[in-house]
Amino acid sequence: MDSWKGAFFEQGRQSIKIPVPVYIRASASIAGSKEGDGPLGDLFDMVGVDDKFGSNTWEEAESTLQKETLQLAIGKAGLSGEDIRFLLAGDLLAQSMASSFGLASFQIPLIGLYGACSTCGLSLAMAAALIVGGMAQYVASVTSSHFASAEKEFRYPLGYGNQRPLSATWTVTGSGAFILSSLKGKKDRAVITGLTIGKIVDLGMKDSMNMGACMAPAASSLICQHFADFGRTPEDYDQIITGDLGLVGQRVLLDMLAEKGFDLSGKHMDCGIEIYDEKQDAHAGGSGCGCSAVVLSALILKKLEEGEWKRVLFVPTGALLSKTSFNEGKSIPGIAHALVLERCS
Amino acid sequence: MDSWKGAFFEQGRQSIKIPVPVYIRASASIAGSKEGDGPLGDLFDMVGVDDKFGSNTWEEAESTLQKETLQLAIGKAGLSGEDIRFLLAGDLLAQSMASSFGLASFQIPLIGLYGACSTCGLSLAMAAALIVGGMAQYVASVTSSHFASAEKEFRYPLGYGNQRPLSATWTVTGSGAFILSSLKGKKDRAVITGLTIGKIVDLGMKDSMNMGACMAPAASSLICQHFADFGRTPEDYDQIITGDLGLVGQRVLLDMLAEKGFDLSGKHMDCGIEIYDEKQDAHAGGSGCGCSAVVLSALILKKLEEGEWKRVLFVPTGALLSKTSFNEGKSIPGIAHALVLERCS
Repeated sequence: MDSWKGAFFEQGRQSIKIPVPVYIRASASIAGSKEGDGPLGDLFDMVGVDDKFGSNTWEEAESTLQKETLQLAIGKAGLSGEDIRFLLAGDLLAQSMASSFGLASFQIPLIGLYGACSTCGLSLAMAAALIVGGMAQYVASVTSSHFASAEKEFRYPLGYGNQRPLSATWTVTGSGAFILSSLKGKKDRAVITGLTIGKIVDLGMKDSMNMGACMAPAASSLICQHFADFGRTPEDYDQIITGDLGLVGQRVLLDMLAEKGFDLSGKHMDCGIEIYDEKQDAHAGGSGCGCSAVVLSALILKKLEEGEWKRVLFVPTGALLSKTSFNEGKSIPGIAHALVLERCS
Repeated sequence: MDSWKGAFFEQGRQSIKIPVPVYIRASASIAGSKEGDGPLGDLFDMVGVDDKFGSNTWEEAESTLQKETLQLAIGKAGLSGEDIRFLLAGDLLAQSMASSFGLASFQIPLIGLYGACSTCGLSLAMAAALIVGGMAQYVASVTSSHFASAEKEFRYPLGYGNQRPLSATWTVTGSGAFILSSLKGKKDRAVITGLTIGKIVDLGMKDSMNMGACMAPAASSLICQHFADFGRTPEDYDQIITGDLGLVGQRVLLDMLAEKGFDLSGKHMDCGIEIYDEKQDAHAGGSGCGCSAVVLSALILKKLEEGEWKRVLFVPTGALLSKTSFNEGKSIPGIAHALVLERCS
């Protein structure tokens, strides 16, 4: 009896194998004006002219972002809201308010998640797990962030015009939504073939204006564990893509992985670095739950579709802090979750 | 092709059937001093003498609660942290800080969840889904709340000594942890045999001092959908147990269900009503992520073990608000998730 485990899909210490295909049937991305002006501007499905997206508050603006993005993704999949079994969603606001007010009208059973800026990875991972487990045919994942609601939530009122050090990142205004399915469609964007769930890594760093450095150890730990769990090396991937480490975090990550014997140079990409141009004064890069989500939908899935990449490791990263924990002098632990994404054959 | 769905475990519109047993191998509850003085005081595994639990801040106190409770549950299950595949956790603090700082030392892959006070139900539901899906042998679920950290997060500094209307609930200081397994043990506390995932229900109520009334419509919707999905009626349950509706919410729920033709009188229980004595001045009852969690571990599982009940429906309820949403004049939507718990045969 004790030899039967029932845990058929365990893979190594932190991973889940995906023996039946989980298809990304469709996705959508809506971004703010600054993101629209950046290098990926033409790739987003929609770009807001007004960053309030017609709403009265920044929080409502973020809720509107989630709502419109999910609606767009469901439409692109040729489905209606009733076809979606579960909604997996989260954001950076206290008590996940962007999701609560953005998603109520869909009337889809909601699984609320929190992994800071890694929530896009966590929600896709849990969505894939529900499909692999036979619990749903269609599942949707949606995450968002908004520069102005995040500044208000974590830092200073925008009106203060406070200065930012060069190691700081700029919270992306944007939302990405994904429709996952157990059914092969006519034109799926990619397939999810593996998951690695991260643990909290806390090296004691406390600088909220250098979140890349706070998160890089978690990304390094997760990537090493992923390689161990699946018996793979960087050679097995065309690209390894972190969420929002930015320029400082990227350097820390590459150094930490080099110490472990993994050379990622030439095949590491960070969504936070890709989303803004150097001239846009975003300093170390973009961040937020929306950052990896919009880059996944607009850029990464596109490159998989076009065949430029065959298999990538997508690793959204999160910094676990609140303004209370920061004010109480706590450290900023990191977490990261990974998905193996492959080109649909 | 399109007739094969792969969604073997779908049940009705919002539910998941559990065809292989998910055992609650062990559980633990630690509560604060006020809860210790209440009617369930003798049933908790531990009661804090000092509600700071040896910590310097209320937030650290809540983190300590989670840490100690999880450690106790793992020990009771005869396991070590390494045996636990995934940790599913959440709390009420902004950005789930109690979990982030309480659970880091376990070094177990973390799936962070947010469902307000329904998080205990959500985390158990997702834990059960991961086990049914074959993704883990042992999974742990832990949630918490703390009166003082919640007052600070949502309402007024304790020092103000502000008055509370009789419809207000008192946030429970406590944490409950549960070890779920695909393996039958020698002395499992109960079996999970069904899940219903809730959607957001917003009737426009805005009174944060009457959260029971804000959540009751979600509980009513969820319970009705559960009956429809499983083809059951109240007769199929020995008890239907909501999380933290309190006295006002209970009345609203029973009225709403009566309108739908379901009579729950005599078999409805609310964790928030059970946890405090009328003399304790907690007004409408207890609330918080810790409320349903400690009552489940201390009372509900005990009654299932002792055979007083054979099958209950456990329905933790959540009010989706933040201090920002409240200050911006938004409504307080509700959500609820349900688990079918049965006596181990």
